[in-house]
Amino acid sequence: MKKLLFIFALSCSIVYSQDYKVEKDRIIDLFENLKKFGVNENQGNDRVAYSDFEIKARDYISKKLEKTGAKVYTDFAGNLIAHYNPNNSNLKPILFGSHIDAVPNGGHYDGTAGVIHAIEVLQTVHAKNISLNHPLEVIVFSNEEGGLFGSKALAGKINQQTLDVLTISGYTNAEGVERLGGNVDRIYEVKRNMGDIHAFIEMHIEQGSNLYSSNTDIGIVEGIVGLKWWDVTVKGFSNHAGTTPMNQRQDAMIAASKFVLMVNETVNSYEGSQVGTVGRISAEPGVPNVIPGIVNLSLELRDLSSKKISMIYNKILENTKIIEQETKTKFSFSPIDATGDPALMDRRIINLISEVSDDLGYTSMLMPSGAGHDSQTMALIAPTAMIFAPSKDGISHSPKEYTNFEMLEKTTNVMLNTILKIDKVKLD
Amino acid sequence: MKKLLFIFALSCSIVYSQDYKVEKDRIIDLFENLKKFGVNENQGNDRVAYSDFEIKARDYISKKLEKTGAKVYTDFAGNLIAHYNPNNSNLKPILFGSHIDAVPNGGHYDGTAGVIHAIEVLQTVHAKNISLNHPLEVIVFSNEEGGLFGSKALAGKINQQTLDVLTISGYTNAEGVERLGGNVDRIYEVKRNMGDIHAFIEMHIEQGSNLYSSNTDIGIVEGIVGLKWWDVTVKGFSNHAGTTPMNQRQDAMIAASKFVLMVNETVNSYEGSQVGTVGRISAEPGVPNVIPGIVNLSLELRDLSSKKISMIYNKILENTKIIEQETKTKFSFSPIDATGDPALMDRRIINLISEVSDDLGYTSMLMPSGAGHDSQTMALIAPTAMIFAPSKDGISHSPKEYTNFEMLEKTTNVMLNTILKIDKVKLD
Repeated sequence: MKKLLFIFALSCSIVYSQDYKVEKDRIIDLFENLKKFGVNENQGNDRVAYSDFEIKARDYISKKLEKTGAKVYTDFAGNLIAHYNPNNSNLKPILFGSHIDAVPNGGHYDGTAGVIHAIEVLQTVHAKNISLNHPLEVIVFSNEEGGLFGSKALAGKINQQTLDVLTISGYTNAEGVERLGGNVDRIYEVKRNMGDIHAFIEMHIEQGSNLYSSNTDIGIVEGIVGLKWWDVTVKGFSNHAGTTPMNQRQDAMIAASKFVLMVNETVNSYEGSQVGTVGRISAEPGVPNVIPGIVNLSLELRDLSSKKISMIYNKILENTKIIEQETKTKFSFSPIDATGDPALMDRRIINLISEVSDDLGYTSMLMPSGAGHDSQTMALIAPTAMIFAPSKDGISHSPKEYTNFEMLEKTTNVMLNTILKIDKVKLD
Repeated sequence: MKKLLFIFALSCSIVYSQDYKVEKDRIIDLFENLKKFGVNENQGNDRVAYSDFEIKARDYISKKLEKTGAKVYTDFAGNLIAHYNPNNSNLKPILFGSHIDAVPNGGHYDGTAGVIHAIEVLQTVHAKNISLNHPLEVIVFSNEEGGLFGSKALAGKINQQTLDVLTISGYTNAEGVERLGGNVDRIYEVKRNMGDIHAFIEMHIEQGSNLYSSNTDIGIVEGIVGLKWWDVTVKGFSNHAGTTPMNQRQDAMIAASKFVLMVNETVNSYEGSQVGTVGRISAEPGVPNVIPGIVNLSLELRDLSSKKISMIYNKILENTKIIEQETKTKFSFSPIDATGDPALMDRRIINLISEVSDDLGYTSMLMPSGAGHDSQTMALIAPTAMIFAPSKDGISHSPKEYTNFEMLEKTTNVMLNTILKIDKVKLD
């Protein structure tokens, strides 16, 4: 059986060495049209989830997708789906897509580039009448920026609390979903199980500068990093800044400063691409003429391995004891709820993406995703992969986001040919 | 002339070797009665400036002072004054006193101890019918905690802006002064000039632990430290905490932490009792998953010498440049208005206090005041001195303030005998 599959895969590889190509002009056209729905005076994008901008953009996308003959509909969770199955295949669908909602004053790339890729892949398959074994499904997820809502609904990871969350648009998720054409009463029916989907593939701009600074065409995501957050409190002794001699202080600010530098040094002391950040700080009472008795900080650690995150955290705890002794202060750590486990991408699809990139003559790089994406949820229910395009100077969530069309053409070509390869292989 | 004065002073010194003593029981009585006006459920004191508590306490004090035969009145700036001049002397008055207003939930000592001292000194002079050359004036300053209001009015350092300041009581200074019996329309008339006052002397608890920890009876203040404040802004580059590799960050939090530790080390690198404090900090955007692009801090430096403050500040600026290079960030400093120059106490009175302490068999220590007091303003218009009493564990502005009556008796004895010596010498 394995031998048969190998011969089959080899023959496919020969077939696809012809390498189908997408149309750059259609990519530019999609980009320029989608940009209109939400562009603001900074040339940024205000197309937040559930906004009128998003609803209008989805109308535009639906019409484009319908032209391929796909069955276009909005599921109960507000995900826009185009089901393309000209041969009435009974096989499981291959899903691909991303999101078009943006952060306020965001950019025009982010998830939108991934949706443009998905549309153009389907347009090419349709235009070139490429024969496929599996049905294809383009998906535009609902409210990605507000917590991966649409993909979580697919993975069965939402509940009433999620529905009640007030989003940046002023609507709750429940209200927003109805605005998009979903149906909250039946929302839990959208759940798909492991085995329902042949594969999921998402393209996104890299929210970092690895590809851009190394002049690499294609980022192949090996996994989306896990993230842990802690509240850290330093207790010293608040006292008069004028009358307390320097050597009699228990200054929580001094201890907190040592902590920030120690976290940085500890994270850097390990090989790898893990990151650690202190992003929030406040002092009590917080006035120039009182030695702070309390300082509150946040601690964030991210890595592809939960084990490594734990190891670094334990080392930070160990090093904190030294700071406590040096500064006569006391630290406490309490985990914050907003944490997530790492999500590894499917190794078989990763290899296919790598092959396709090589075949097309594009340079590629294996890399972690430091940011969260719908793919991390989809990885719970399907073999999943992500392709990154370089983003100028690594800027994201900003009007300054920029990726040139040559690059977007390349990533779309990789996405198309990877999907055509996935169509021919067994993944479960 | 000098010789004559010397013989005169010597003869006085012989006279006063008999060392008049105050009555501890009267000190206890004053303390227990004043405590009632503002004591709260924490056994702290809520007698904030201009409050009903303060008005009632002043009524009590006025009655006590009137019993000495002094002319008791409230000046236009709300300072309560008892002018004691049984011999109708034309010489300049010797002023002594402090304040009875407290911070919210403060203690029962602070300035109130100094007022108790002043009342008891006058009660003793009156009871023992001690003959004096100069008139005496007990003074209870208005709104010390809110910015040395009453003493600033005497020194001509208030203006309409000062009058409009809303104080912790809910009244502006102008409204508060009227509540105390002052007259805002004539407030600038209270100004006294250098040469109008023979000497000013204030007793206060030490807001620090130097006396208590060294078991010393009497603190002789050599000066009130000057204080400079700056707003410090660190600019780095805000970026995604997940996707920005550790070695590509311009983290304003790292730079700020290095700054806090460098300030501490720089201040400690000089001999002396200077202090430096970073009491306030905030980061922007201030969330766990974003590398801070901006951190705002406060910097405070205090010392008896303005020159030394400048020298340390310049060294801090120099060391900041190294941090800027190491962290690829930019610092800026802007002075805050609430700064003050050092105020040196009168060296001649310092020597008299030291002699008196020795004569009485008390231990004494020369020390700076790290905190601000009415004496720093009075030093602008009169030869001025301060006496400190030990405060348990150096605690102040807290219900936990505590100084035992034996100690208060000693400092009152020093104050009385110092005033009697000052009465006999020429100071201008």
